[in-house]
Amino acid sequence: MNFIRVNMNTKTIKVEAMPDEYKGIGGRGLTSIMINKEVPASCDSLGPDNKLIFATGMFCGTNMFNSSRVSIGAKSPLTGGIKEANVGGTSGGALGKLGIGAIIVDGKPKAGDLSILKLDLEGNAELIDASEYKGMRTYALVEKLHAKYGDKNAVLCIGPAGEYMMKSASIQGSDTDKRPCRAAARGGIGAVMGSKGLKAVIIPQNGKKADPLVDKETFNEATKAFAALVKANPFEGELLPAFGTPALVAPVNLMGAFPCYNATKSEFEGWQKISGEALANTIKERGGQTGHVGCSQCIIRCSNVFNDKNGKYVSSSIEYETVWAMGGMCGIDDLDVIARMDFLCDDIGLDTMNTGVAIAVAMDSGYRKFGDKNAPIEIMDEIAKGTEMGRIFGDGPSAVGKHFNNPRVAAVKNQSIAAYDPRGMIGNGVTFATSTMGADHTAGNMVAMYLGHILDPLKKEGQLENSRENQIFCAMADSMGLCLFAMYSIAAPDAKEMFIRLINARLGTSWKVEDLRNLGVRILKAEKEFNKKAGLTAKDDRLPEFFMKEPLPPHNVVFPFTDAELDGVHNF
Amino acid sequence: MNFIRVNMNTKTIKVEAMPDEYKGIGGRGLTSIMINKEVPASCDSLGPDNKLIFATGMFCGTNMFNSSRVSIGAKSPLTGGIKEANVGGTSGGALGKLGIGAIIVDGKPKAGDLSILKLDLEGNAELIDASEYKGMRTYALVEKLHAKYGDKNAVLCIGPAGEYMMKSASIQGSDTDKRPCRAAARGGIGAVMGSKGLKAVIIPQNGKKADPLVDKETFNEATKAFAALVKANPFEGELLPAFGTPALVAPVNLMGAFPCYNATKSEFEGWQKISGEALANTIKERGGQTGHVGCSQCIIRCSNVFNDKNGKYVSSSIEYETVWAMGGMCGIDDLDVIARMDFLCDDIGLDTMNTGVAIAVAMDSGYRKFGDKNAPIEIMDEIAKGTEMGRIFGDGPSAVGKHFNNPRVAAVKNQSIAAYDPRGMIGNGVTFATSTMGADHTAGNMVAMYLGHILDPLKKEGQLENSRENQIFCAMADSMGLCLFAMYSIAAPDAKEMFIRLINARLGTSWKVEDLRNLGVRILKAEKEFNKKAGLTAKDDRLPEFFMKEPLPPHNVVFPFTDAELDGVHNF
Repeated sequence: MNFIRVNMNTKTIKVEAMPDEYKGIGGRGLTSIMINKEVPASCDSLGPDNKLIFATGMFCGTNMFNSSRVSIGAKSPLTGGIKEANVGGTSGGALGKLGIGAIIVDGKPKAGDLSILKLDLEGNAELIDASEYKGMRTYALVEKLHAKYGDKNAVLCIGPAGEYMMKSASIQGSDTDKRPCRAAARGGIGAVMGSKGLKAVIIPQNGKKADPLVDKETFNEATKAFAALVKANPFEGELLPAFGTPALVAPVNLMGAFPCYNATKSEFEGWQKISGEALANTIKERGGQTGHVGCSQCIIRCSNVFNDKNGKYVSSSIEYETVWAMGGMCGIDDLDVIARMDFLCDDIGLDTMNTGVAIAVAMDSGYRKFGDKNAPIEIMDEIAKGTEMGRIFGDGPSAVGKHFNNPRVAAVKNQSIAAYDPRGMIGNGVTFATSTMGADHTAGNMVAMYLGHILDPLKKEGQLENSRENQIFCAMADSMGLCLFAMYSIAAPDAKEMFIRLINARLGTSWKVEDLRNLGVRILKAEKEFNKKAGLTAKDDRLPEFFMKEPLPPHNVVFPFTDAELDGVHNF
Repeated sequence: MNFIRVNMNTKTIKVEAMPDEYKGIGGRGLTSIMINKEVPASCDSLGPDNKLIFATGMFCGTNMFNSSRVSIGAKSPLTGGIKEANVGGTSGGALGKLGIGAIIVDGKPKAGDLSILKLDLEGNAELIDASEYKGMRTYALVEKLHAKYGDKNAVLCIGPAGEYMMKSASIQGSDTDKRPCRAAARGGIGAVMGSKGLKAVIIPQNGKKADPLVDKETFNEATKAFAALVKANPFEGELLPAFGTPALVAPVNLMGAFPCYNATKSEFEGWQKISGEALANTIKERGGQTGHVGCSQCIIRCSNVFNDKNGKYVSSSIEYETVWAMGGMCGIDDLDVIARMDFLCDDIGLDTMNTGVAIAVAMDSGYRKFGDKNAPIEIMDEIAKGTEMGRIFGDGPSAVGKHFNNPRVAAVKNQSIAAYDPRGMIGNGVTFATSTMGADHTAGNMVAMYLGHILDPLKKEGQLENSRENQIFCAMADSMGLCLFAMYSIAAPDAKEMFIRLINARLGTSWKVEDLRNLGVRILKAEKEFNKKAGLTAKDDRLPEFFMKEPLPPHNVVFPFTDAELDGVHNF
């Protein structure tokens, strides 16, 4: 496995063997440990000293299913702390097959300079002038790049929002249908890519330089056994292919934990128009696709393709969190508006959650009315043009709240929460508050425990411990290059042992089950250390005050944990 | 609430107020406690001293959702012990609305005598000569009865199998589409009805004599809250309406617990042709119905309507256990054969499980080949005609095993297991062995705990205790008149308290949460007492030997519990 180091100031590229100290660490483990070591924590996140690191997960490039996630890390312009966002689609697998462990981008070119990083089948890289693509949205960009360099390439890229260095800017990745519809969405990671003057990374998909499996036979046997576990779980095996992640709309809304109207309510009266069932029916009526394979080697098929009334492509894939942010939070019960907003975010290169919540905060401030279906589209136009108002929206909900002097901003460390009200699912509130990443559902989502009646979403008992263990688990899981849905099956009987067999067969190591947790703890420690050096304190590990002050109907409850309780979560 | 006592010998009918001692006990609680008290345990189950009791559940006749199940109890000609089988559709709600707590049928008419019991809106009953319906199958019978007496009536009836007093004979109930496609299937309860010379019970659906709710406001509020819990569970709220109970085919098969080829294997190679997804797709292609409302006041919609290739009705509803019994167990991967067999069982009046397993035992004995798609249909013809061979098959798998001298009969107390191999889901094996009802998945199914990774299906730890508590829970649940899927939501936080509010608002009682378990224990004790008096011993609480002797692939495990462990399950 190689590292590719790219300096955007000198435009030099170095390929080096992955140092021994990083062996057996992939994805988020690699980005976070390296950033903590190599990036001055007090640096300007959009300046030359920050590093943008693309790291393949441990299983990327192998024949393991759902193993195409690449982690992208940097100091975040949004949270001021460390950031890792990962993206599926085709890039992670493609990078793995080139034998690339990480691409580390540092320095900063002169203003206005824009490049593309193009990889070849030998795993070498070159920088190409990208002036002609300046300001381009991602769909048009990727089409052009595919036309010029061949459509067998995976592409990671930014849109106008990234070039503007907006704090909600994402890095978009191409999916199996060659569309840039998958996002490393969070933390303004796209702004860092923009600050480096990097418009896109082009990655051939047919590489053959992945490190060979140390024990192929065991690996294949364990892969098969683990796949059977994933398929045997009704959630991953049946519900996700049928309804996609919006399968969560109905249960979370009915539990009274679906934040809507900028988190003033938790039950959305229009939920049946935007539920997983409604989405699947609409998609089928219009000749779209449910059970779509969006990521390389996916066996779960949670993706979908949404068409308009005339059967013309609108967007892929409509996810639960987007249905929530653009739907419930803005009081909009119209899948056509939601799908259009999903497309616009992908095309402009924006986090749908941060953007939807920013619009909701503006609506809550009287800027436009909740339920106004034109407002979001018009705001997207402002963002795309980079107008003064557009830049405020592009910087996310905290910037909008500040602009309107509205403290009702559902965000932690300036990053919006996801579709679980911290008062209706209090363990998710603990994760949102204490995660090293800002409010982030992928850092430790407890929804499965609530739906499975393993934990009561409203009672304090067990929440702190389970949030902690979940955060440790997610840090480890984000290092594997596998999607979280695939990783969840590790909870099945004997699955941890099976997973360890996979790792050891991949690497020739002698990991034990407890090493999984050890890796998660090590990653979180590195992240916490970086955040501390960057100046984040316990006060940043807090939910906004309104979650502790405004009782949420129908249960009429507030977030119940004290500061001291939150400060004890990461007790390792 | 009234009791209606019907003597088939004297053809007399008495209506009496429900005795105080039975107040607050419905459904299975009522049938089991009364049978234990009133039926001589040593009696001939097909003789005059046995009683056939139809008892409404506690919520039948109210506006509570999914509250249309009626329990039917007797001494079982199949197991030799006590039996309760309950059925959904329209009858339970209709009986409840007439203010009927139970119909108790005893005595025995002279041979060849056949009657119909017809209820009126006052809750009175009359016996009508039914000679003209002799030998009729249920679909034609119900059509005739609806034509003659009005199609707003719910009907409970038997087919030829019940008239022949076969030990797999069911009592069929009409659904919301007026079809006799719902079954109180188990224990040969239809044979007892046949022995009483009772062809059908006709029940007007528009009764207005249900006991009024004591606290209507609380009842309605708690009903709404409990409904929200049911809808909020992805299994009940999304998976069942999308795929019906065959949603279980994929996960159980992938776990290696789907008994096939007469339980010689546990992974059926043709599972994808008979899975919930395949079924839903086939149904939709042919203009059938998924998410069908088969039972009165149902909010779950697990039912379906299966059409043939020409869009013509075949059967409703295709259930998981039938897909297994007629499919996997017989090595048949053809939904058309399975649906046809489902219809024939309903039409002739037979338990699909006992019948499918009987056919599988015959195939395992070389009578016909596994996978032979004609064999089951031909066997059904023999059963319907009541030939000598047909009578053996109609008496179920133990009779077939005895005939072919084949001990590989997956049954306990002569009643077939359901679609969970006792070696692949060992807690289900504990339930099958120790249930008072013979092998019965509705007596304590653990599959949800296995799929939720709460319990390991292959490890002994926790199985005995969980089977016990599940059996207690099911005895209680079967007394409520609600379907088990609705009852499962009682595991949600605060749901038990909510359910107690419902009971107290219904009855004006002051039940506490622990009274739910107390009721379950009381019922099981009565059932055990009856079974003991009837001569059943600990030796009857055993699985057939082959489950302890033949390791089941792919896990290559046998059922691991000792006799002493099984004997300790009911330690109350």
